[in-house]
Amino acid sequence: MPLFTRLARSLPATIPFVGPEAIERRTGVPFRARLGANESVFGPSPNAIAAMAEAARDAWAYGDPENHELKRAIADHLGIGFDNVTVGEGIDGLLGYLVRLTCAPGDVVVTSRGAYPTFNFHATGYGASVDFVPYRSDDREDIDGLIERAKALRPKLVYFANPDNPTGSWHEAEAVERLIAEIPEDTILVLDEAYGDLAPAATLPPITLMRPNLLRFRTFSKAYGMAGMRIAYAIGEPNTVVQFDKVRNHFGVSRVAQAGALAAIKDQDYLRAVIARITAARHRLTDIALTAGLTPLPSATNFVAIDCGGDGDYARALLEAVIRRGVFIRMPGVAPLDRMIRVTVGRDEDLALFATALAGAIEEIGAPKAE
Amino acid sequence: MPLFTRLARSLPATIPFVGPEAIERRTGVPFRARLGANESVFGPSPNAIAAMAEAARDAWAYGDPENHELKRAIADHLGIGFDNVTVGEGIDGLLGYLVRLTCAPGDVVVTSRGAYPTFNFHATGYGASVDFVPYRSDDREDIDGLIERAKALRPKLVYFANPDNPTGSWHEAEAVERLIAEIPEDTILVLDEAYGDLAPAATLPPITLMRPNLLRFRTFSKAYGMAGMRIAYAIGEPNTVVQFDKVRNHFGVSRVAQAGALAAIKDQDYLRAVIARITAARHRLTDIALTAGLTPLPSATNFVAIDCGGDGDYARALLEAVIRRGVFIRMPGVAPLDRMIRVTVGRDEDLALFATALAGAIEEIGAPKAE
Repeated sequence: MPLFTRLARSLPATIPFVGPEAIERRTGVPFRARLGANESVFGPSPNAIAAMAEAARDAWAYGDPENHELKRAIADHLGIGFDNVTVGEGIDGLLGYLVRLTCAPGDVVVTSRGAYPTFNFHATGYGASVDFVPYRSDDREDIDGLIERAKALRPKLVYFANPDNPTGSWHEAEAVERLIAEIPEDTILVLDEAYGDLAPAATLPPITLMRPNLLRFRTFSKAYGMAGMRIAYAIGEPNTVVQFDKVRNHFGVSRVAQAGALAAIKDQDYLRAVIARITAARHRLTDIALTAGLTPLPSATNFVAIDCGGDGDYARALLEAVIRRGVFIRMPGVAPLDRMIRVTVGRDEDLALFATALAGAIEEIGAPKAE
Repeated sequence: MPLFTRLARSLPATIPFVGPEAIERRTGVPFRARLGANESVFGPSPNAIAAMAEAARDAWAYGDPENHELKRAIADHLGIGFDNVTVGEGIDGLLGYLVRLTCAPGDVVVTSRGAYPTFNFHATGYGASVDFVPYRSDDREDIDGLIERAKALRPKLVYFANPDNPTGSWHEAEAVERLIAEIPEDTILVLDEAYGDLAPAATLPPITLMRPNLLRFRTFSKAYGMAGMRIAYAIGEPNTVVQFDKVRNHFGVSRVAQAGALAAIKDQDYLRAVIARITAARHRLTDIALTAGLTPLPSATNFVAIDCGGDGDYARALLEAVIRRGVFIRMPGVAPLDRMIRVTVGRDEDLALFATALAGAIEEIGAPKAE
């Protein structure tokens, strides 16, 4: 008898994302700008940094496994109930738990082709098959297509990010509410709002809109600038949210992350200020792309997808040439989105490094062939 | 169709451990001493605290998903290969991944009755059934019994902690090596050495003893004093260790935890000093139990199991009375171990609070009835 399950033996050893550190180890060249993982180089609130440094002294003690104080603060901040919130080890961790709770081998989930790979990683990892709806020709997720496929396949989960990663696009709340209303009752809509804090107000449906088959995911990794701490939350009806308690790693959220998140959510002044900086940097990044003769897509996030005007091979060559120049960026993995590179916003000095690297890369590999 | 899997619907909402914070919320009284979770109140190395405070400033960036630098340091420290090590979100997190990789619904795992509940939580959570071997009459795990049951049931996993939690007992390396040798080839031995850093040298089999069906688990939570950070590692043959990469949350270990663990493992002087403090405190705690007329068990860990001389009801009453006096302790959940309370070592002031609380508790509830 083999030591590992049939499912485990069938899984590839591939991972959703290669870290910049692995690229540095491969090339031997440290990155001078880190603009590939949609982190916030502006960092968390100084209050959060201070709270985490203070909590490091108490690192000998487990965090509260119920995340009580933080759940209370999140609920109060959003104007929802304590029982509408669960906290976990990043959206990645929460998505893993949700797939586990909903998918048995052979079940189906639906997402957009080229959307967040970690959702697919978890689905495949629990034996579900992943069905893909193409992005629309305007590079936005296809809400009508997702509804249609959900009605046809009755999947366990439909994944939808608003704003979207990797395109940076977004839909108005009204369209999202239509998706929520039309999704089959026995399908959970996974509404990933990781970038929701950065989006125009009209992007997000009212937070009080609850359905048994709706879970919304938000994080301290993006606007709050705490990607390295692994802490996020899901919002939904109590009977849905409580399911996570059956399987989650109860002591999985670090005490330092709890302290940082609590301080961060209480410092909305800082959040507003950092969102303004991110918005300004996004405009500057858009200008850099235009100056280079490329086509930046509109974005409601902390990154810009840039259409390089060629095919996937061209964008991959451009990406490698930028990386060789010491600037870490990423790109979507599958066509037709793979004609883009994806660049996270940064400080002026980060973006200046990117602008120089981009110009050098285009000079090196040339403009895309006219098609 | 229900939203959640049949397995998920069958799971209870119970959790392995109630946190001290939940008890404080229930009673309204903050604990004055925290001696229930086998944390190290002596804390991590000052170098680790400084490294974590420094890393908090970089909390905007994801940690290295490959944990490369830390794996290198662990391998070098232990004198094993880089590919013999995987890092994860505490032993709890790693145990969850291992159960997932090995157990399909209906599979069997074996453990000792009253041993670490989180292993059982994960096994049940993935649909495995848990078979129990009783502790020996001397309150130590029954190696012969575990071998016998493993040969009879051919379970996917056998869990064995050395030193043991919750009894604090330990077996000599020779006995453990016999367990390793006799376990069936298609069963993985889960050798939990969370307290291994605290045990006499003769307790641990050579670290270079590797088998395809052997995984050893070690942690920064206990002797290294970083329970709140959620970081631990597993050691085994490369082909076994690499399986974790198929399912783990690749970005799940926080950047601050990585920095702290790296600094901690490099400060072996501090580790030696803290082990001496823990040992001295364990002797003091043993004296406190004897003075109170109770029977402390020998321990090779940072806690002492104390036989209260009565039945489970008596120990539970004593535990509650200690807790009411502001001292957080725990106790084993099932008979016959539930005649004990389990007290973590602490500073002199912590142990003095416990001694006073224990005396008061015994005065309140009386001595156990003679049987």
